[in-house]
Amino acid sequence: MTRKLKPEPLTAAAFAPFGDVIETGHRRPEPINHGSTGKYADLALLEAGPDGRLGVHIYRSMPRAGPLVIRELERHVLGSQAFIPLHSRPFPLVVAAPGTEPAPGDVRVFLSNGRQGINLKPGTWHHPLLGLEAAADYLVIERIAAQPDCETRALPEPLLIAL
Amino acid sequence: MTRKLKPEPLTAAAFAPFGDVIETGHRRPEPINHGSTGKYADLALLEAGPDGRLGVHIYRSMPRAGPLVIRELERHVLGSQAFIPLHSRPFPLVVAAPGTEPAPGDVRVFLSNGRQGINLKPGTWHHPLLGLEAAADYLVIERIAAQPDCETRALPEPLLIAL
Repeated sequence: MTRKLKPEPLTAAAFAPFGDVIETGHRRPEPINHGSTGKYADLALLEAGPDGRLGVHIYRSMPRAGPLVIRELERHVLGSQAFIPLHSRPFPLVVAAPGTEPAPGDVRVFLSNGRQGINLKPGTWHHPLLGLEAAADYLVIERIAAQPDCETRALPEPLLIAL
Repeated sequence: MTRKLKPEPLTAAAFAPFGDVIETGHRRPEPINHGSTGKYADLALLEAGPDGRLGVHIYRSMPRAGPLVIRELERHVLGSQAFIPLHSRPFPLVVAAPGTEPAPGDVRVFLSNGRQGINLKPGTWHHPLLGLEAAADYLVIERIAAQPDCETRALPEPLLIAL
């Protein structure tokens, strides 16, 4: 039988072992530009690694068909990786703590409210973006380098995300 | 009499002297994650400067009252500065080329379609975000450093943006 995993709400405190939550949330903004703008400052620790630079992509996740089954995770040990939704629909984030060999019991699922982005610490295991009902765009900020930096691990048993 | 400036459509070619347009546009994505995601890769040249790092902010521009009058511009010579809308409403971008002393005749106004972000090259003169009818959030990627890096110049005459 496939193990089922229920998403948790995405909060900065709960997500701290995996990285940053990029959101205005309950923060108090700093007024700038003569008060015409509120600045929510320094929301993510971006890391390019020793030989990389930080680049910007847009990822378009394709519409999902069928249930959300997790069979493997991946990680990037040299750089951080930020995903910021350019839509406003809730979406799931599947992660396991850096430094572990990810076992099904270590996997956590967080549900972004659609206005929350995240920044994964280097080494945080995660599943690639999971499609929503329709195509959905994300801004991605990550290391760009000549050497690729992606490890994958198959889980010993699949996990079903119960949205 | 105040000079009036009409916005131009934001295109990568027209905006090239000022920086990058961050958009999917007519680009062809690279399929990744077993084809479940399309990657529009490397859309902006981010620059942190010699003693800076790249950070992520959210700027919330407050609702605008009255006409869009431009009286001064600013620039950051050490780092790039990217603005990506987290809303989908068209918004104006006011710029003048790097290396100039901005005169009213050098000022250009581009209209983002609401799905286009931009990345300003170091030194590009620009006006801070101009408010829309309602509060609007932008993701900002810019240099963070101990030394501030902001010059401002008053224009000899104000410019009115004719939206």
